[in-house]
Amino acid sequence: MKIGLDTMGGDYAPDSTIGGALLAYKEMPATDRIVLIGDEQVIREALVRKKADPEVFDIVHAPEVIGMNEPPSRTFFRKSRSSISVGFSMLGDHAIDAFTGAGSSGAMMVGSIYSVNVIQGVIRPCTAALIPKENSGVGILLDVGTNPDTKPDVLYQFAILGAIYAEAVHKIIDPKIGLLNIGEEDIKGNVLTHSAFQLMKDMRDFRFIGNIEGRDLFNDRADVIVCDGFTGNVIIKLIESMHEIIVRHGRSDDFIDRFNYENYGGTPILGINSSVVVGHGISNAGAIKNMILLAREMHNVGLAGKIKDTLIKFSEINHF
Amino acid sequence: MKIGLDTMGGDYAPDSTIGGALLAYKEMPATDRIVLIGDEQVIREALVRKKADPEVFDIVHAPEVIGMNEPPSRTFFRKSRSSISVGFSMLGDHAIDAFTGAGSSGAMMVGSIYSVNVIQGVIRPCTAALIPKENSGVGILLDVGTNPDTKPDVLYQFAILGAIYAEAVHKIIDPKIGLLNIGEEDIKGNVLTHSAFQLMKDMRDFRFIGNIEGRDLFNDRADVIVCDGFTGNVIIKLIESMHEIIVRHGRSDDFIDRFNYENYGGTPILGINSSVVVGHGISNAGAIKNMILLAREMHNVGLAGKIKDTLIKFSEINHF
Repeated sequence: MKIGLDTMGGDYAPDSTIGGALLAYKEMPATDRIVLIGDEQVIREALVRKKADPEVFDIVHAPEVIGMNEPPSRTFFRKSRSSISVGFSMLGDHAIDAFTGAGSSGAMMVGSIYSVNVIQGVIRPCTAALIPKENSGVGILLDVGTNPDTKPDVLYQFAILGAIYAEAVHKIIDPKIGLLNIGEEDIKGNVLTHSAFQLMKDMRDFRFIGNIEGRDLFNDRADVIVCDGFTGNVIIKLIESMHEIIVRHGRSDDFIDRFNYENYGGTPILGINSSVVVGHGISNAGAIKNMILLAREMHNVGLAGKIKDTLIKFSEINHF
Repeated sequence: MKIGLDTMGGDYAPDSTIGGALLAYKEMPATDRIVLIGDEQVIREALVRKKADPEVFDIVHAPEVIGMNEPPSRTFFRKSRSSISVGFSMLGDHAIDAFTGAGSSGAMMVGSIYSVNVIQGVIRPCTAALIPKENSGVGILLDVGTNPDTKPDVLYQFAILGAIYAEAVHKIIDPKIGLLNIGEEDIKGNVLTHSAFQLMKDMRDFRFIGNIEGRDLFNDRADVIVCDGFTGNVIIKLIESMHEIIVRHGRSDDFIDRFNYENYGGTPILGINSSVVVGHGISNAGAIKNMILLAREMHNVGLAGKIKDTLIKFSEINHF
């Protein structure tokens, strides 16, 4: 398989991206190739700095860069020679099997929707983050920013997407789905969660365990936690900053280090016809490595196909 | 002044409440009295267990208790001899100057609205939590659960309430107000925050510093952070659980202990004609003490009057 990497994406690119590609290369079989997409001269110089053999990678020249503050939609189409636009063009043409990047998350979403297309039946694609559990393992939180305004049926579908992702990629068998809310009782919540709860409570498309609260994020009550993208985005940035503060004050250890975003590589875009992972802007080489390996795993397990098959099955059962 | 305490409120009542009242008593001048409201026999037995002199308190008999899972509105009126109903009745009659309790937060809100009344011009009262800043001091987060669905003008008013509370009670001079959002740019957010930003950006009623993100909660960018009650409630429960996990893993120290809710005593209800603080259900004696002292401070600085005066002034300027 071939995994594309936006070598220009992220605050510390290209050193972080090339460094991450080298780390990932060492953990992958020779049949898998990483495709470095970006300004060829910049890529080759970075490879020289790292004393790396350029032959182990494919290099695709893309001289433009989409800035973090440029409007994603317009720039994605206008800068057709940018690393992100070229990457998605290749993904749409099946010249690569997966695409990863820590650049403009907006442009990565635009590319996912326009070049790769949303899986039929998916109302809104979303992004998922991994949350470390106190005891062991991880939970999945979604959406974490793609859909700041969400409707109950969309939350319902996030539960399905999250359950498939948790089981296929993270090997969580028969995952427990919780709805993030501000109380455990049926009647608690805002208009959105109250309606979503009513939709979820009697359905058999997934294993719904009911409302969970902010305090349950790190315990074992739920494996997949569903919320609107506004709340999810606030949460992941909050957790990250708490982890940073604790590290800064010298209180880190193996356990607390599980809250380090680097270990999780990036957020996959769920609900599209391919494997795309968006990395954190501040990704270092270790995070880039994990982002590439996550995209590889998503492709290898056939995540998009599983989502497609499941939605077809559910639509037949539920007559959606 | 007289401060009422619901001695039956909280998971560890009455030992936590009586213990907290004794601790608070030691820090207050003799002119201030704590009024213990609840089942008199239960109160007197708890005072005997603690070898305390009952003469230092006023005791008001209220034999009923509002359960945590009872519907707040209905129960507040039906159980008129409950500690919460009696407390608010006394507060409405000015028999006490402030009321505190760690029982049903719903019933505390019902009492605040019906027995004490909302300050004229306040669209929705709200609850505020203290957030420890990494460097020093605290920030104010509001709303933290009273208004899970919020409108832009309500968020705007939370900013005013939060600014007055921060300055009057926590001595934060000319507080910086931030709108919690999922990006710093004007265009970021959900429908609610996008509209609220437009309302706030050109106004001069408070010192608006723009959007802030989940990662800014503990830094010095904003002193008062405004959000809907759903997001705020998820946040405070999340922070509390992260603190608990860190303590459980033996990584606590003076700095991390600043995240302990006990230090902050409870959440004040802002926007009503009196001083009411709602404590955490799991409050211990230390938390109860701080809850009482916070209510005392709110009364002493005349917080409700300041809010009333400010809203009258703003309504004249802005022709609301």
